[in-house]
Amino acid sequence: MISSKPVRGTRDILPEEMKIRDRLEQQILAVYRSHGFSRIETPVMENLELLLGSDGGENLKMLFTILKRGEKLDLSQEASVTDLCDMGLRFDLTLPLSRFYSNNQEVLETPFKAIQIGNVFRAERPQKGRFRAFKQCDIDIIGDPTVSAEIELMDTTAKALLAMGFAGFTIKVNHRQLLSEVIINAGFAADQVGTVCIALDKMDKIGVAGVTGELLEKGHDQEKVDKLMACVTGISLDNLERWVEDAVAVGQLNEVINTVKILAKEQFDVVFDFSLIRGMGYYTGLIFEVSYGPYGYSIAGGGRYDNMIGKYNKVSVPAVGFSIGFERIITILMEEQKDARQVDSAIILFYDPQSSNMAEVIGEGDRWRIKGYQVNLVAMKKKFGKQIAAWDNGQYEGFVVFGRDEAIKNF
Amino acid sequence: MISSKPVRGTRDILPEEMKIRDRLEQQILAVYRSHGFSRIETPVMENLELLLGSDGGENLKMLFTILKRGEKLDLSQEASVTDLCDMGLRFDLTLPLSRFYSNNQEVLETPFKAIQIGNVFRAERPQKGRFRAFKQCDIDIIGDPTVSAEIELMDTTAKALLAMGFAGFTIKVNHRQLLSEVIINAGFAADQVGTVCIALDKMDKIGVAGVTGELLEKGHDQEKVDKLMACVTGISLDNLERWVEDAVAVGQLNEVINTVKILAKEQFDVVFDFSLIRGMGYYTGLIFEVSYGPYGYSIAGGGRYDNMIGKYNKVSVPAVGFSIGFERIITILMEEQKDARQVDSAIILFYDPQSSNMAEVIGEGDRWRIKGYQVNLVAMKKKFGKQIAAWDNGQYEGFVVFGRDEAIKNF
Repeated sequence: MISSKPVRGTRDILPEEMKIRDRLEQQILAVYRSHGFSRIETPVMENLELLLGSDGGENLKMLFTILKRGEKLDLSQEASVTDLCDMGLRFDLTLPLSRFYSNNQEVLETPFKAIQIGNVFRAERPQKGRFRAFKQCDIDIIGDPTVSAEIELMDTTAKALLAMGFAGFTIKVNHRQLLSEVIINAGFAADQVGTVCIALDKMDKIGVAGVTGELLEKGHDQEKVDKLMACVTGISLDNLERWVEDAVAVGQLNEVINTVKILAKEQFDVVFDFSLIRGMGYYTGLIFEVSYGPYGYSIAGGGRYDNMIGKYNKVSVPAVGFSIGFERIITILMEEQKDARQVDSAIILFYDPQSSNMAEVIGEGDRWRIKGYQVNLVAMKKKFGKQIAAWDNGQYEGFVVFGRDEAIKNF
Repeated sequence: MISSKPVRGTRDILPEEMKIRDRLEQQILAVYRSHGFSRIETPVMENLELLLGSDGGENLKMLFTILKRGEKLDLSQEASVTDLCDMGLRFDLTLPLSRFYSNNQEVLETPFKAIQIGNVFRAERPQKGRFRAFKQCDIDIIGDPTVSAEIELMDTTAKALLAMGFAGFTIKVNHRQLLSEVIINAGFAADQVGTVCIALDKMDKIGVAGVTGELLEKGHDQEKVDKLMACVTGISLDNLERWVEDAVAVGQLNEVINTVKILAKEQFDVVFDFSLIRGMGYYTGLIFEVSYGPYGYSIAGGGRYDNMIGKYNKVSVPAVGFSIGFERIITILMEEQKDARQVDSAIILFYDPQSSNMAEVIGEGDRWRIKGYQVNLVAMKKKFGKQIAAWDNGQYEGFVVFGRDEAIKNF
């Protein structure tokens, strides 16, 4: 017999969760649209060349690739993935958006404010709370080089989170150019910035001592490492000028944090966090992440990626995005039972399959639907009492028996 | 430079179409939910063994398969797709539903009324109006062996189509068991039913003479073919008993058509069509399709498939489904411009990026949002007149300039 389990690392979504997911997606979409963003959609498959040519970092090791069709494959021992495959499943929504923008630029508004809600795919080692297919809700602004774009994205994302019942979250902000400057000032070479960042990224897990140890282990000078860690632990929004010279970046950081603080009206917080790194190689300016409650993962993240669209377009186009991790939102909401309330009015209309005329039963259902009810038609069984008990699952307000009841009965 | 085109046979969906798609999806979903159906979701990838083991007919030749990851591949000349790949993209929503039902049966209602809205994938030869990734909107009833299920599916699907502005469509109905009986009565062997059906399926394209020719060409006796074609052209709902003996199937066909005729209230038609075949090998009883206007393709289709779930469950579970082809609906709506009306109130709030405080600009935007507007913030350029003209694209009701206007101006 064939297994009925979904493929490894994925899951089936049951009706009760699906109702919540649909409602949350509509809430997010409504906030996004009310802020002037427009939804677009791209295919889940992209050309493999495009995916492999991106700055996708670790995600490139987790690609699902699709076998070529209808042609003779090179089945020699040296055959590589590009010999066998021509497409892959997208690992994020940013790369497809960049391709989309280049492909459709002449018919899009400038700046273009995009909404994307869809699944992305990563062949991660399956573990609790991590899935190989998961939904992201992204907004991006393409064509605005100023921090107005970052401010709008943070404001809109925050309003979406608040609409879903999240309050008291923290937006952490950092700047890639300041990170580079500090690392290079400490004495590291420009081409070491990436590996140093990978170590710094672990700060919240292994602490200052852990990061220091890791950098020394990798053979970096004690002096450089000490200088770097002094900055990392001492830097703050008030003393930025002591550590860095890039006045433009400092100004951007200050403007964004100060403005979003005003917009927050104390419903959420926005802070400078110099240990915020974010994995993607494509970020070029401000980067940000949302943390919430005791959960050890971010529920949203994003940043500026001014050089990505230039790959297709020759001309560089400024771009910045913010993505809500839908699966994490759902996990928290279901764990905190923020969303236990039943919003739909649903009833069952039982009918006797022997004596009922289906056209009349459906007509009776329509009369309840006009009153605003979701109506589930169910044939009565002989042991009706037992049958009713089996339907008493909390999803229905009550039931009506065709030809017999004028009002809804409770289970 | 890397190409910015989407992968072959797929397309990017632009904001204007996306708005229509979102609204239609919500309309369909609302009708489905109001009739007591519950939405579920399954991953787009399924185990290759499951896909290849199905009665997917021609669709199995059009599978997208996914390369195995992290293991040594068998790269010999004899390597088959199952040596190289372990998963594939789903080609319909019926097979995943059957797997889902078997996997989750103990927590699902009986009968279970499922909604599925999602993309399916077929590596078809790209041609106008045919895509390799396309959306289907399915409802299925699992666990009801009576034709009440068929009637409910037809009623609900018809209401969804009417809600979207389609009227005057025709539901064509046939019965797989009557088809088999007629073909066998004409003298064909039981194992020839499938190939005869493939020929009969072309009736609307090549006519009686064409089908006759094709069957003779395949080496079937003139006598058998004549007997079959006499029935095919002569059979009708009024004279069924002259051609077939299966009283149960005849009764089902009559009950469904008579009941749905009453429900139709002359807004649509329901007819017996003995040339309706439907490609999938898994249908076992009533089959149906919706045709509309001059378009040479169906906009919805479905049927009963009582044996599919038994593949995982050992016990056979009755099941029937009806699927709306979302891409075809969209194509017709956009072609007939049924949906040209603008339903959202959207405005642009222009601001001077030099002198404006972004927190105040966003606050002003919120005041318009409270009044029900979608508000797009856009920085003013020096040549404001020219800039305004570029935004006059019919998507906005008008614009407001921050700090200057109290009312909306027209473009």
